[in-house]
Formats: sequence, C-alpha cells, structure tokens
Amino acid sequence: MSVSIGDVRRAAERIAGYVRRTPVVEVSPGLFFKLEGLQHSGSFKARGGFNRALSGGKIPEAGLIAASGGNHGLAVAYVARSLGVQAEIFVPTVSSPVKVAGLRALGARVTQVGAVYADAYEASVKRAAETGALDVHAYDQAEVVAGQGTVGLEILEQTGGVDTVLVAVGGGGLVAGITVALDGQARVVAVEPELIPTLHRALEAGRPVGVEVAGVGADALGASRAGEIACEITGTAGIRSLLVSEEAIVEARREMWREHRIAAEHAGATVYAALLSGAYTPAEGERVAVVVCGANTDPATLV
Amino acid sequence: MSVSIGDVRRAAERIAGYVRRTPVVEVSPGLFFKLEGLQHSGSFKARGGFNRALSGGKIPEAGLIAASGGNHGLAVAYVARSLGVQAEIFVPTVSSPVKVAGLRALGARVTQVGAVYADAYEASVKRAAETGALDVHAYDQAEVVAGQGTVGLEILEQTGGVDTVLVAVGGGGLVAGITVALDGQARVVAVEPELIPTLHRALEAGRPVGVEVAGVGADALGASRAGEIACEITGTAGIRSLLVSEEAIVEARREMWREHRIAAEHAGATVYAALLSGAYTPAEGERVAVVVCGANTDPATLV
Ligand SMILES: Cc1ncc(COP(=O)(O)O)c(C=O)c1O
Ligand SMILES: Cc1ncc(COP(=O)(O)O)c(C=O)c1O
Repeated sequence: MSVSIGDVRRAAERIAGYVRRTPVVEVSPGLFFKLEGLQHSGSFKARGGFNRALSGGKIPEAGLIAASGGNHGLAVAYVARSLGVQAEIFVPTVSSPVKVAGLRALGARVTQVGAVYADAYEASVKRAAETGALDVHAYDQAEVVAGQGTVGLEILEQTGGVDTVLVAVGGGGLVAGITVALDGQARVVAVEPELIPTLHRALEAGRPVGVEVAGVGADALGASRAGEIACEITGTAGIRSLLVSEEAIVEARREMWREHRIAAEHAGATVYAALLSGAYTPAEGERVAVVVCGANTDPATLV
Repeated sequence: MSVSIGDVRRAAERIAGYVRRTPVVEVSPGLFFKLEGLQHSGSFKARGGFNRALSGGKIPEAGLIAASGGNHGLAVAYVARSLGVQAEIFVPTVSSPVKVAGLRALGARVTQVGAVYADAYEASVKRAAETGALDVHAYDQAEVVAGQGTVGLEILEQTGGVDTVLVAVGGGGLVAGITVALDGQARVVAVEPELIPTLHRALEAGRPVGVEVAGVGADALGASRAGEIACEITGTAGIRSLLVSEEAIVEARREMWREHRIAAEHAGATVYAALLSGAYTPAEGERVAVVVCGANTDPATLV
C-alpha cells in the first residue's frame, strides 16, 4: 500500500504542534460528530498540508505551491504563514474575489490562470518546476493522505471506538487516509453528492475516471477524478460509496445548525445527509462517527 | 453553602442521559473553549432545567413553568418536551415574535404578559401557585445552580485541569455552579458587559442590588439583579468580576467565527472579549478555560 498506518502515526507526531485536535461531540447516543470545521483554516486540509511541508527536511526558498480556489488553497496558505515560508496559490480566473481576497489575507501570492481548475493545476506544476517550490497536492500525494488520516486516529481515541466512520469524498485523500488510519478497527463508508460521483465511478471502473462536477458541494468535493492513491486504498479495502441528493445535503446542513448549532459547509453536511435521508441506516446499537470536514461557508446561509 | 460539590456531582448523574457532554477544544496551547452552545437548546441552560425537573420525584400534572423570553425559556421547553410533560413559559409582551415562535415550536404554551421581565416573572409565580406546576427559576434555585455546575466538572475532566475558568454572568447561576464544581481546583473569574454589571455591583455591595440593563448581551445576561445564591457563593469564594465593553464583545464574537469557526451569541463571546481586550491577561503558562455559554444567534450576523 502506498500509505501505511505507520505513515499516519508519524504524520500525527509531525503535525501535533501545528494542528488542532478538533473535538468530538456525541450528539445522540452512539452518534459522534468530529468537528473538523474547527481546524485551522476551517477544514481538515491543514493536516495534509503540514505533513507534506514538514516531511522533506528544509522547505525550499520558494516555499509552498498549490492549485486550489478552495479549502486546500486556504490550508496551504495557512501552513506557509505558520512556518514562515511563502505560498503561491494558483486559482482559475473564475474564482470569486472573496476567495482570492481570503488567500491574500493569509499572505499568499495568488495567480489567476486558466478557465478551470485543471488549467490552474497545470500552470502550478510548470511554475513549481521553475521555482523549485514544494508542491502540495490537494489529495493525490502520500504525505497529504497520511496527514488527512490523522483525523481517523483521533476519532478512535476520542470516541473510545466506533463501528463505522462516514466520510465525504472529493479526490479521496481524506477517505483514503482515514481508511489506513482505522486499520480495520472500524468500517469506512464514503459519501458523495449524486452530482459528483467521483469515487463511486472509480470503484465501479477499478480506476480513476473523469466525471462531470456540479451542485452545492462542488466548491469542496468537486475533483473531477479520484486520486490514484485513493482508488488503490479504497478499492483494496472494499469501501462502498453512497450517493446523496442535493436536497438531502441542503437539508442536512440546515438541520446541523438548527438542532446542533454546528456550522458546516455543504461538503461538511454531505455525510450527515446520508444518515438523515436513509441512504445509510445504522444497525441497532451501531456506533457511527460523522466527519464534519469543513465550515468555510457564509453563515448567513445556514438558516 | 446552599449548594455543595455533592449536589453538583449528583446533578451530573441525574442529567447524564439527557444532556450532551459538550466538547472542549484547545484553540491554542493552554487555551480551552468549552462549547456549551452545542448543548441541547443552544445553551447550558438545559442542565439546570433537567436537574430541577428530575430532582423532586414525579413532575406535577401541570408540568413545568418558567419566565424567560430567552435561553432559559427555550431550555425549559426543551426539557419538558424531552420528559413528555407540559411547559408554560411567561414572556413580556415586548418579546420578539421569533422567540415566541421558537418556544411554541418546542411545544410550550406561551403567555405574553407585562412590560418587562419582572412582570412576566411575577405572573408566572402566581400562575404556578394556581396550577401546581413546577417552577424552574432562571438562576436562583439550588437545583438549577447545581445543574449549571456540571459544566465545571466536565471542564476539569476534559482539559485534565486548568488554572482559571472564565465565566459570563447574568443572574449568576452558571458562575455559582461552576465555582462550587471546581471546589478550589481552579480559580473562577466572572466577566460581565460594562452595561450590565450585575454581579460586579453585588460583590461591591455584599448583596444583590438592582442595575440598569442594556447592550448587546442583554437578551441573555440581562438579569437586573444577581441571585441570592450566586451572591453567597461568589462572595464567599472571593471571586472577581471583570467588565468588558460593547465593542470588545462584538469584536470577540466576530473573531470566534473568523479564526475558529465557532458560532457564539454575544453572551457566549463576552468571556473571550476579556482575553482579547486585555481585561484578563493570563500569566505565562497559565491554563485557561473559556465557557462559550450559548449559540442562539442569527448566524447572518457573525460576519
Ligand atoms: C470540506 C471538505 N470536505 C471534503 C473534501 C474532500 O477531500 P478529498 O479531496 O481529500 O476527498 C474537501 C476537499 O477540498 C473539503 O474541502
Ligand atoms: C448564553 C448565556 N450565557 C450566560 C447566561 C447567564 O447565566 P446566569 O443567569 O446563570 O448567570 C445566560 C442566561 O440566560 C445565557 O443564556
């Protein structure tokens, strides 16, 4: 396997002084929410970013480089600022001024290039080759997957053990890391919006395949193709991917605020949508952890 | 003392199946937020409500009765629904339709009477005498104080110990309960808005005195007079009350969302305002817990 439980354990030690051990709340008996929206930069993405940045000895003079108009970009900008190095973030020209301003507020240099994410990504790879900056991939890098996996270690410790962990999927770094971290001690179930069935299709095909990307979760879950690492790990582990409707995601997000006063972005509510809509029904007495993966959202839209 | 550590421990056992053990997050080294806004009904108030309701044997036919247009009313309505009994909540006629609707949505019978809270309270006392309903006071009842104190027990367990717990004050039930719960294992510091110095004046005078009530915290911290129990307990313990400005509260609340993605109402941000504004400066290495007491707020106003 490209990422081992030892890699995840070492990642946890490496990033311990830099990331928050986010809290877990048992919202009803046997149902645990892991509140990763309270992580630095508002999502779990800082974990993979720190692990990648801290894995290779001294960070190059040119700092870190990444392509992302979303949480990954924010996380890499945050990581760079924390470590006192530069960050250069490539985003498509369509990125909202608010997001670009958010990246700049964290001190990142922002380059807007290309019509879609893939173009910005290609430009970032070219640029990294020129400057020697350390590229931090959004999901398909062993150090990034190992870093995201630390969420899984904490879930086991903080809950005293669960039967099942439900995880949302974009490119699959988070679900892959958690699968490795759980090391068979709990089952992983992936959840994706119907409109972005990236892992679903990859598991059917046995390899990453391109999918269309749309809907409320697209800004965070909108990888158009699962990562190689994610495919390998989730395929080997025999993980299922459940699909949830747009309406279910929107309703789950509202319910999380209404009933629990938890602010989640749509990606962060996608997993709970699987429970509320009945796409996943726990057995009697089953202990279930829900990864609330991000809270980067306009709070005005929570009600 | 009117409330003992034994009372708080028994309260914790009594309410354990009904309230959430809310999470604690270490937002930076040695600084802990106790996220009581994630409690049922959005504030710690459900703790005192359950303890009062469950302390006296069978709940009367007429159910629970309380006076409050705010979090206490919501909590008592929630407690009653959970226990399958009626709740009658008295609110002043000025109460916003949104709040009244919120109470009704929880199944409570709402009576709007009197120009100010004190009038609604008096009417509720009279009504309780007629119907035999169990009155749940917002702060000045031993069972309520003991119930709120369970927050303090959890802080000690969840942090592994702190030096100082910072607590916001309305009528003083929360600060009194936590003071008893900590049992000298950590220092309590009270924090109040400058515009509602209820405990501050009471500690100066050595007894509850009436104060004017105004400002952003008034809907939750707006008791115009501290409780007898709170005065006794905080006076005996030699607790200080710090005052914070309106601007500091507003800014702390924004910062909690911006930097931590924690949704807090103004009362819930009052304590953090003492830290941010320098009203309270922890010593080098001091471990500090901040009680984030409530999250019943319009999320649109967080940014
Ligand atoms: C909030 C949130 N949840 C989930 C994901 C998906 O993560 P992954 O690409 O590792 O599957 C992302 C990716 O940006 C995210 O920001
Ligand atoms: C959110 C919140 N914080 C603090 C308080 C103050 O509590 P106490 O009256 O016990 O001092 C209240 C009271 O309603 C509240 O709702």
